[in-house]
This record gives sequence, C-alpha cells and structure tokens, in this order.
Amino acid sequence: MTHSKSQFTIAELTQGLEVTINGDPDCPITGICPIQQSRPGCLTFLTNPLYKKYLSDTQASAVILSKDLANECPTNTIVSANPYYTYAKIAGYFVRPAVLQPGIHPSAVIGKDCQIHPTVKIEAQCVIGDKVVIAENAVIGAGTYIGDQCEIGAETQVDAHVAIYHQVRLGKRVRIASGTVIGSDGFGYAKQKAIWHKIPQLGRVLIDDDVEIGANCAIDRGAIEDTVIERGVKLDNLIQIGHNVRIGEGTIIAGCVGIAGSATIGKHCMIGGQTGIAGHITIADNAVITGGTEVSKSIREPGVYSSGIGGLVTNNEWRKNSARVLRLEQLVQRVKNLEFILQEMIERKSE
Amino acid sequence: MTHSKSQFTIAELTQGLEVTINGDPDCPITGICPIQQSRPGCLTFLTNPLYKKYLSDTQASAVILSKDLANECPTNTIVSANPYYTYAKIAGYFVRPAVLQPGIHPSAVIGKDCQIHPTVKIEAQCVIGDKVVIAENAVIGAGTYIGDQCEIGAETQVDAHVAIYHQVRLGKRVRIASGTVIGSDGFGYAKQKAIWHKIPQLGRVLIDDDVEIGANCAIDRGAIEDTVIERGVKLDNLIQIGHNVRIGEGTIIAGCVGIAGSATIGKHCMIGGQTGIAGHITIADNAVITGGTEVSKSIREPGVYSSGIGGLVTNNEWRKNSARVLRLEQLVQRVKNLEFILQEMIERKSE
Amino acid sequence: MTHSKSQFTIAELTQGLEVTINGDPDCPITGICPIQQSRPGCLTFLTNPLYKKYLSDTQASAVILSKDLANECPTNTIVSANPYYTYAKIAGYFVRPAVLQPGIHPSAVIGKDCQIHPTVKIEAQCVIGDKVVIAENAVIGAGTYIGDQCEIGAETQVDAHVAIYHQVRLGKRVRIASGTVIGSDGFGYAKQKAIWHKIPQLGRVLIDDDVEIGANCAIDRGAIEDTVIERGVKLDNLIQIGHNVRIGEGTIIAGCVGIAGSATIGKHCMIGGQTGIAGHITIADNAVITGGTEVSKSIREPGVYSSGIGGLVTNNEWRKNSARVLRLEQLVQRVKNLEFILQEMIERKSE
Repeated sequence: MTHSKSQFTIAELTQGLEVTINGDPDCPITGICPIQQSRPGCLTFLTNPLYKKYLSDTQASAVILSKDLANECPTNTIVSANPYYTYAKIAGYFVRPAVLQPGIHPSAVIGKDCQIHPTVKIEAQCVIGDKVVIAENAVIGAGTYIGDQCEIGAETQVDAHVAIYHQVRLGKRVRIASGTVIGSDGFGYAKQKAIWHKIPQLGRVLIDDDVEIGANCAIDRGAIEDTVIERGVKLDNLIQIGHNVRIGEGTIIAGCVGIAGSATIGKHCMIGGQTGIAGHITIADNAVITGGTEVSKSIREPGVYSSGIGGLVTNNEWRKNSARVLRLEQLVQRVKNLEFILQEMIERKSE
Repeated sequence: MTHSKSQFTIAELTQGLEVTINGDPDCPITGICPIQQSRPGCLTFLTNPLYKKYLSDTQASAVILSKDLANECPTNTIVSANPYYTYAKIAGYFVRPAVLQPGIHPSAVIGKDCQIHPTVKIEAQCVIGDKVVIAENAVIGAGTYIGDQCEIGAETQVDAHVAIYHQVRLGKRVRIASGTVIGSDGFGYAKQKAIWHKIPQLGRVLIDDDVEIGANCAIDRGAIEDTVIERGVKLDNLIQIGHNVRIGEGTIIAGCVGIAGSATIGKHCMIGGQTGIAGHITIADNAVITGGTEVSKSIREPGVYSSGIGGLVTNNEWRKNSARVLRLEQLVQRVKNLEFILQEMIERKSE
Repeated sequence: MTHSKSQFTIAELTQGLEVTINGDPDCPITGICPIQQSRPGCLTFLTNPLYKKYLSDTQASAVILSKDLANECPTNTIVSANPYYTYAKIAGYFVRPAVLQPGIHPSAVIGKDCQIHPTVKIEAQCVIGDKVVIAENAVIGAGTYIGDQCEIGAETQVDAHVAIYHQVRLGKRVRIASGTVIGSDGFGYAKQKAIWHKIPQLGRVLIDDDVEIGANCAIDRGAIEDTVIERGVKLDNLIQIGHNVRIGEGTIIAGCVGIAGSATIGKHCMIGGQTGIAGHITIADNAVITGGTEVSKSIREPGVYSSGIGGLVTNNEWRKNSARVLRLEQLVQRVKNLEFILQEMIERKSE
C-alpha cells in the first residue's frame, strides 16, 4: 500500500534531477507504489530485473527506469542513468513530514554545563549527561540516554531508546535507530589464576558525518585508541562492532554482522549479512564480502570474497555431502592406492 | 526449582482437557518440576525421549505423558495425545499472577488525540505519541515508546523498553518482549558518485493477532509496501526482519535469524537459529530450515533444508578437512589422470 | 589517542604488583597509549606478537612486557610474568572517575516494599518494581527497568537502558551493559491443531558474582528450572541465551553467539564469536570453540572444536569449491569404477 501525502506533477517531482520525461510532465502523482502492485495516480520504479515482467502491464502513472527499458513502458517514463537514485530523491516528497518543534520536553532530564542549541528537539523522558554539546537542528528521540561529555553534530537524528555512553562524538547528519548502544566497554580481559580481569576501556567512539546506524546495534568504545566509523558509512540492524575497530568511508554493512576488536575495514567496502570478521585483521578498500562469510584473515586487495561451502540443499543431501567431506581422507587414500597399483603395473610391463 | 503459587488437585488442573487420569484425581499438586529433578507434590511431563530415563524413578506426584509410556510411570499419570500441549495448559495455573491494575502511570507522557481504552495499563515512564489507539486490556510496559498513529489491539502485551515507530499496527493478543524495535527504517540506499543516498521508507509494519516476538529483535518498516507478520507467528530473540518481508501464518523462527528485505516466508514454516535468508526470495509453506542454514535461493516445495557442510570435529580435523576441500581440484585431476591412463592401457591391449 | 587523567610515577603504578622495573621508577606517566602510536609520557604494553615490530622504535616512557623481550626495549620496562594482567591493573589508574553520588534521582519511579541500601545510586528515569532489593554501592543507570522481586548484589553496576524482568537475581560486582534484556520468557510452544500454544515460563535467571554481560544481549528466564550464569562468566555483546541454559564458572563468550534452550556449558570454556550451540547438549569444562562453529552435539572432553569448512577465498574459487563438494558423489563413483576396472585387469592377468 502507499501513503500519498499530497499531489505533485511529474515536472515538479523531477525538478533539478538529470532525467528525461517521456509523456505528460503535468501528469499528477499522488503517491508511490511498487511495480507489482501499481495503480493510476502513483509513481513507481524499475531497477531489479526480477520485476521487469511487471512493466508492460503497469497501471502506474509514471515509471522511473533506464533508457533501454523506456520503450517497453506503456505509460509516462522518467528516464535516468541511475533510476534508483532518482527514485530516492523523488520519494523524499512523499515522506511523512516530521513535526519538528524545537525544544526540550519537560520530562527530559538534562545534566550540568550542557550546550544545547535552541533549535534542538529533545523528546520526552530523555536523559542527557553533563557537559553534552548538541548542535543545531539535532533531534534526540524519546527516552534516549546520552552520557557525559558527548558531542552531537548538527542535523543529527538519534531515534527513541538509544543509549550513548560518555565521550562519544557523532558528526553532522548522523542517524541512529532505536535500541542501538554506542560506547559500551570493549570486551577485554586478562586471565590470571583462572580469573578474567577486566581491561579498562579508555578510548571513545568517533562517528563521522553522514553515518547511519540501524536498530539494536552495539558499538564498543576503544580500549586505548578510539573506535572510529568514518564518513558516510551505513550499518544495518543488529551489528556488533568491537573495540578499536575502524570502518572506512562509504562502507556499507548488512544486518547481523559481527566485527571483532581491532579490525580495520577499508573504504567503500560492501559486507553481506551475518558475516563475521576476526580481530586484528585488515580489509582492503573496495572489498566485497558475500553474506555469511567468515573473514579469518586479512584481505589485501579489492575483489569479491566468500568462505565455506555454499548451496542450499535438502537436509538428506546435506547429510550425505557432510559425510562425504568427513570421509575425504579415505577417498584421497583410495586414489593414492590406485595410482600406486597403476604405477606398478606400468613399471612391470616396461621391464 | 519450582514456583508453587497455590495448590490444585489433578482433577482441577485437567478440567476441560482431553486427558485420562490414571491414579488419584484428588492428589494435590503444589507446583511444577522438571522430570530430572522431581519431588513429591509437584507435577512434571515427559515429551523429550532424552529424559525418558528419569521416568521410572520420578518422585513427582503426577506425570503428563503419552499412552505408550503410561505403564512405566510409578505415580499418577495424566495421559494425553499431546502431552506438551496439555502441559502448556496446566502450567498456566502456576504462572505468577500479574497485578493488572488498569490506568496510566502519572510519569507516562501521552500524546494528543489518543484513544486509550479505560481498561488499558500504561506503566511508568512510557512515551505514547499522537493519535495512538490502544484497545481494551492491553498492557504497555515501563519505559516503552509508541510512535504517532500506532494501533495496539485488545489484550496485547508490550513489555518494558520496547520501541515502536509511527504507524505500526499490532493485532490482538500480540506479545512483544523487551528491547525489541518495530518500524525502524528499512536498509535501502542508492549509490551515486560513491555516496550512498537514503531511500525514504514509506511503508508500515503490520503485525497480526497472536503474534509473539522475543527480546531485542529489529523489524524494519516497508520501503513502499508494508512489512507484514501474519497471525500466530512466533519469533525468538535477536531476530532481524528487513523491509517488505512477509512471514506467513503460524511460522516459528528461532533466535538470531536474519531475514533480508523483500523475502516472503510461507505459512507454518519452522526456521532454526542463526539461519540467514537472502532478500527477494520466496519460501514455500511448511518448509523446515535447520539451524545455521544460508537460504540463498527460493524454496519451492515443503521439505527439510540445510546448507554448507555440517559436523562438529576437533579443530585439527577441521583444518585437515578444510585443506582437503580446498585441494579437491587436484584430487579431481588425479582421478582424471588415472582414468586416462587406464583407458590408454585398455585400448593398447585391445589393439 | 589517550585520556590521561593525572600523573603517576612507574613506582606508584606498579605498587603491589609482582613486576620488575628496569630503568627509572620515578619516571612520570601521564597516560596510556598503544605501542604502534606511543609518545613520551605514556605507558604501553606488548602482549600480541603482531605488534612486536613496534617495540624497538617506541616513544613511550615505559613498556609492560615479558622477560624475554625486555632487552629489546629502548626505554623503561615493567617486566611481568603476565603483562596483560599487569596492564589491566595499571590501566585502572587512568579510568575516568565516575562521580558516584549515592541517591535516587527524583525522576526515578520506585515500587512498593523495596529495600534499597542508602549507598545505592539510581539514575534518572529508572523504573524499579515492587519488593526489589538493591545492596550497597550498586549503581542503576539511567532509564533502566528492574521488575518485581529482583535482587541486585553489592557493587553491581547496571548501565543505562537495561531491562530486567521480575525475580531475576544478580550477584555481587556484576556488570550489565546497556540494552541487555534479562528474564524475558523462554521460547517454548506446544503445537495443537496448527496453532502454537505458549508454554508458561516459570523459572528465573540467576546471575552469580563477578559476571559481566555486554550490550544488547537477551537472556531468557527458565521454563521450570532457572537459567543460571555462574561466577565470573564474561559475555560480549548481542548474545542470545535460551531458557534453562547453565554456563559454568569462568567461561568467556564472544559476540553474536546463540545458545539454544537447556544447553549446559562447562566451566572455563572459551567460545568464539557467532558460534551457535544447539539445545539440550552438554559442553565439557575447558572446551574451546572457534568462532562461527555450529555445536550440534555434546562435547565430552576438553579440546579445541570447529565445524564446517573454513578458509576465506575469492567468490570464484568459492563457487568452484562448492560445486565440487556438491559433485563429490560423482567423484566417489569414478574412483569406484577405477578400482573395479583395475581389479578386473589384475584378475584377468593372473588367470
């Protein structure tokens, strides 16, 4: 279903975008719909080839697509070299407008010596520590906790129920979704006489401009150095980031990934869901790691990387495959025997 | 240990259930105990064959079990065609009674234009947005956040510290455990000139009647369409559900599962822990997926599915197995050589 | 970067520790630094051989290290049989001192019949249930929820935004990081006529002294028995612990691990990140499980365990390896054929 907020013409929606309109630029658009469930009045887009089959029958009033598909479209087209980016910009017109009344809700508890810009909105039940600095137009969602000496950049949006420990720094236009924890102590213990002794975690977490972090992530503070997330990094939900980790600019990481302490991830990497990254390793810029991979050693150059054995099969086949792998040594031995016998036969013959 | 709340006779506990009592229906029961640690006065059950060995020595005053095991039990039996279900019903008598005083705690912050039924309980420090509708006998736990225009069905129980974004709909008798986030933005970005641009997430999350969701899950709102969890679905803890996902009626999913965006899961599926499900795929009704599986393609028919290579071994064996698999090409080549040589020998002979 | 709080001499920092100082015990130390970024005035340590290459050029004013490396160090050394433990103790001097003013913040909501020691600190927006007992010097962080009849031991520190359900018991010197949920209902359902019926979860969670739990974990209460975490256990972030699980003394578990219900983990085990442990199994004391392992059966004796096939490769190699494994049956068949043919040849010859 769609959530039309208002009405715009195609010309209005594409103003300033590098696109070509085929058809009626004055056609009114009242909402967004997916291509497989389109209807008159709505705008849709086509980027995933899986959904191309829905194009010829679309009921939408306009479709954003690439040049090569424009002829197959029965309605108005918005032709773009990057249809998904064009969609991102146009869909912005249909976002539910947040009521952004600045001010601190009376139920919020604010610490001493804070510098909170008058344009900031702090919602109900928040707790802000001492000496916190919050820049213009930042929004702190309901019930969020921000520890002492944190700095929150301009236009940054921290959603409800986020917990940020002391001395964490968020840049500008950062977004943090609910349930995420930033700045918890890193996982460091020294063993002495069968007892694990906690290593004090003295570093901070530094999150640069335009970083976006999903729900229920956990990002630990550094042990001595800081944990650093560079500009423009995007993290999905339920991601674990250990202490001292550094994630390079523009890297994007899908859900349920775990990154162990002191790993260094390059710039513009793409990391698939449920990947695990070992501690103290380095991943080169532009590396792509497929979902579910165990990155057990450093990656020195760009490329696409995976681990283990893939392939979804029935559980019966899986049991057989697993048993065959566990019996591989026997197979190797049998081949060795065959080689030996054959070699003997050949030598005997030649005698 | 057990938590006896009161005392009931076996007859009282089994009223209305399709069971046969062998022994004394007036025997008093004061609590529940596990079969391996049973004691007089308590009731236990036997469903897992692993625990059958404890039956003959049980000290319990009554055991719920199936017909075929009844003769081996030294005490009163409650014979059922579905002992675990019978146990579920009987154990309900021993649940700690929640003190359900309706009313809104004075520390809670309630938005404008809400419709909150007078039987609803809203605990301390909650924040409820504008235009929220909460139906009869719902309970909203301490510190929970519910965004604007949400609808919460009758008898639904949202525990402490849940964060629900705007326009989410929960059906009747839904249960959400602490720390879970519902309705956060889906993970969608379009790349343009090395920058990831956020795709506005315009859909909602719709959760149908009798759905139960564990602790610290993250369920994203749809991009255009809604994310939908159908009636009677049960989710364990720390589960990630991407945008536009649909989970069919009666499906049950264990902990730490990650489901990427736009995946469609059928009805009455069973999905084991730590499974990862790729985006845009479809899983047939009644599919069973074992724990730790990577579901990288659609499942077209019911059955039991797995991936990778299973088998717990010592790390030494694991290293050898892994090396053998990475050397499989050499083994294939050696077999090819043997075949070639043998073929030659045979042809030469026949010349 | 480092966070020097003050200045100490080497002699002061090592007082009471079993170390040997080589060099100037009066040398002033103002902070901690990592060995790869050391500078005058700071103290560092060397335990990871990866970082040994930085020793000869260190700018630090003192290095904690083992006897065999002391000669290679160009500056003051603190020689220890366990340098990491020595570092843990010394780094404690540089921890940012928490301002520990006891007292209950006026915005906190406290239930009936609680016993809260006057030295306890309860921060803003907390909700404490009825009949809760909190012992001396415990700290309850901002916005945390503690359910009815919980017991919190002396010196225990529960950070901001933790949710603890009713009847949970935390021992002394326990630490719980933000976002963690303790005591949520275990995941138990009985199926009857295609409907999952909830099994009441009657047990508790018992957490012994000196346990430390990271951020956004989920620890379920027991079904009948209690879920038990023994003394000195250390858990990282985003860990799932099912109902009735028991974790033995001194065991340490890395992030994103999932432990299914009724599993019993021994004492002094080490469990790597993203490991999955099946329900109802037992793991021997002192077992070591490498990251990403699926523990599908009990481990009867100490040792190092793994599962699946390891090895990070390019995605191309991965596809080939996966295909070869799925074709292993054919390879086995080809070897069988070769063996048969060879056997025939040999028999024919000997005729």
